[in-house]
Amino acid sequence: MPGFQTPRGTRDFLPEEMAARQFIMDTARKVFESYGFGQVDTPAFESWELLSAKGGGGEAIKNEIYYFRDKSDRELGLRFDLTVPFGRLVASNPQLPKPFKRYQITKVWRYDKPQAGRMREFTQMDADIAGAAGMGADSECISAAVRVLRALGFKRFEVRLNDRKVLNGLVQYVGIPDDAAPAVFRILDKLEKVPRQEISQGLMDAGVDETMAKKLLNLVEMRGAPKAVLSKASILLKGIPVAEEGIRELEEICMLSKPYDFDKYVVVDLSLVRGLDYYTGPIYEISAGAGKSIGSIAGGGRYDRLIELYGGKTMPATGISIGVERVCEVVRSEGIQLPLRKAVAVSIISVNDSVRQKAAAVAEELRCNGIGAEVDLMGRDLRKQMESAGVRGIPYAIIIGPKEVESGRYKLRDMGTGKEEELTLDGIIRKLK
Amino acid sequence: MPGFQTPRGTRDFLPEEMAARQFIMDTARKVFESYGFGQVDTPAFESWELLSAKGGGGEAIKNEIYYFRDKSDRELGLRFDLTVPFGRLVASNPQLPKPFKRYQITKVWRYDKPQAGRMREFTQMDADIAGAAGMGADSECISAAVRVLRALGFKRFEVRLNDRKVLNGLVQYVGIPDDAAPAVFRILDKLEKVPRQEISQGLMDAGVDETMAKKLLNLVEMRGAPKAVLSKASILLKGIPVAEEGIRELEEICMLSKPYDFDKYVVVDLSLVRGLDYYTGPIYEISAGAGKSIGSIAGGGRYDRLIELYGGKTMPATGISIGVERVCEVVRSEGIQLPLRKAVAVSIISVNDSVRQKAAAVAEELRCNGIGAEVDLMGRDLRKQMESAGVRGIPYAIIIGPKEVESGRYKLRDMGTGKEEELTLDGIIRKLK
Repeated sequence: MPGFQTPRGTRDFLPEEMAARQFIMDTARKVFESYGFGQVDTPAFESWELLSAKGGGGEAIKNEIYYFRDKSDRELGLRFDLTVPFGRLVASNPQLPKPFKRYQITKVWRYDKPQAGRMREFTQMDADIAGAAGMGADSECISAAVRVLRALGFKRFEVRLNDRKVLNGLVQYVGIPDDAAPAVFRILDKLEKVPRQEISQGLMDAGVDETMAKKLLNLVEMRGAPKAVLSKASILLKGIPVAEEGIRELEEICMLSKPYDFDKYVVVDLSLVRGLDYYTGPIYEISAGAGKSIGSIAGGGRYDRLIELYGGKTMPATGISIGVERVCEVVRSEGIQLPLRKAVAVSIISVNDSVRQKAAAVAEELRCNGIGAEVDLMGRDLRKQMESAGVRGIPYAIIIGPKEVESGRYKLRDMGTGKEEELTLDGIIRKLK
Repeated sequence: MPGFQTPRGTRDFLPEEMAARQFIMDTARKVFESYGFGQVDTPAFESWELLSAKGGGGEAIKNEIYYFRDKSDRELGLRFDLTVPFGRLVASNPQLPKPFKRYQITKVWRYDKPQAGRMREFTQMDADIAGAAGMGADSECISAAVRVLRALGFKRFEVRLNDRKVLNGLVQYVGIPDDAAPAVFRILDKLEKVPRQEISQGLMDAGVDETMAKKLLNLVEMRGAPKAVLSKASILLKGIPVAEEGIRELEEICMLSKPYDFDKYVVVDLSLVRGLDYYTGPIYEISAGAGKSIGSIAGGGRYDRLIELYGGKTMPATGISIGVERVCEVVRSEGIQLPLRKAVAVSIISVNDSVRQKAAAVAEELRCNGIGAEVDLMGRDLRKQMESAGVRGIPYAIIIGPKEVESGRYKLRDMGTGKEEELTLDGIIRKLK
């Protein structure tokens, strides 16, 4: 019979790779908790009604998600992000004290064309705050994400900031109707991937006249130190209230980036759009590694309308999402060494079959004392047991024969140096702990 | 607009409950790793071909799972357990060194009728060993599960053991054809829930004659100390080779339960069946708490044929699965106190708006030193900030005003006792670390 495969766009993670992923997720967990985010969990699938609701996915999402019906013909879909479930959870739990700071680390699914580095099943680590309108909340979400990356040993990354209000102001500035804005945003979103010529043409096709297209491009191509970009934007967009408000928001986040200690990573990038419809204020993206090839590894923004669209009270909200697979890519490409520890410290080697029960008891005693230990389960002889421990890089071996069982003193062998020491079990525990 | 609900049979977990779940999962993770199990992850959905393959779910599983087609009409289903994905993974990765000891902690889905304590989405913690034929592997899986429960503070539980070979021997003993065996097993499986009368009748309907049904019932109703049950079974089933082999397996596990230190929990229960078709040898179940009301919280067994049915080499395998929701039920019903720690140790209180940036910087400094800290994000005044920290049980507060900013000395308030101490930030860090 032929072997079975994982479904297209999905894959397994074997222990070595999974240990790295787990380390990344644990790091995020610790950091998020240190900011007071509490973990939640939500179902893998949600009602189609929710997933397709205005403000979240919209009807168009059907082509991009795993959609199905249960046996009672209920329409369901696998979640495509963690923001929509968060919005639902906040809307339907009005009792939660505000601000409600939650994190969630789990899988989401999108029915994209699978391509290098983009799977249909992937893992997100999201931190969001509901109920806080001020830029302190946005700054804290950005700060938490930056702290996760720094804790992982990332050195080179960039926090790109923009604001949907500034983008809306730009649309007014170039004099196109509001309803053409989404088309313009979509074009600007391609700025990094598509030649300038094509962008200009796209803008003109969307109804922007040639001079204005040029002005707009000159403006959104500004990317760099917050002060320079924001002061230039202030001058250009003066008198457009929504833009002025957006600029004030960005200035405040930039100011707060100092106490939050992420100021040296901040770049204001007026071409940053972020695809989703639900954003209403600041939007942010973190890219890491050399050049733009990696693209963004985290992103988020403010979505002050979503919770009320889901039937909750009007409530401001903001948050950020870190992609585990993207983080793994950067770890690989930048050669970052995650400090992974061998879970098994000791291999208990039985000299012959008569001592196997003792070996099991010794291993159990070590485990109870927090020291990972293994015994042979394959009936291997002494030499094969030693070889196996060596091949797998187990740091220590305890060799047990009838003499050791009688005396209660065991040889502890350092598998790296080959040095051996005779110790009692207590002595071994003290040494390895 | 009305609020959205979670889909039927699924639910959210809010931070308090999730912290307990996370603690349980982390405990299992640590214990499994101390035995040398390595973590894997597999996709949430698998091909329908795999899920319905002989040895795993079989065609009948369609009614019990979430089945769907992707947009290319591929037949898929959400996984209903972690054993089938493990079998697939081992079958398709022949390069993995043996024994391959893996654990996986994640969600599975079954389209059951939702009832109290039984959701359609639930979380399993599985530890399995492929490639080891001896009872040491079974003992280790049982031991790991027992160790998880003990680490969680469980006192009262029972490890029930049986063996499919003994069950097959029983079927021969009572003289019914092999193909009636599944029907007989299904009836025996109800022994705890259904009156004896009904069980007898069921056995007779399955072709067992009255005397034999009585004998069978007398035998399977034996449940207790391994020695007593196994010696009685040995006498009755003498001369039936498959039964003798099963009894030898059980004797070996009982012997190994001593060094593995779970002997005081072991009961041999010849009525234990376990529903799934793939078991071939020892089967085991752990129930906890008072009485049988909770039912099993963990279960597993040996399945030496599954991996070859999935296209791999013939390979012995065994494993155990702990149900997170079941563990949570026992934690609740037994009043077990999980040692959960407050993630946020300090609330930084701003006396007025002029010091909020300093408050953010102080919080950030604490977090960098591994101390969870929060600042107000709602623009609350001093009194409201203190109240909020008190209500949420934050252990400490640091009160920051202009004077503190200038002097670099802060009041650290123990929110429990109300005592205040003036310290530098370094002093606070040293104290709280």
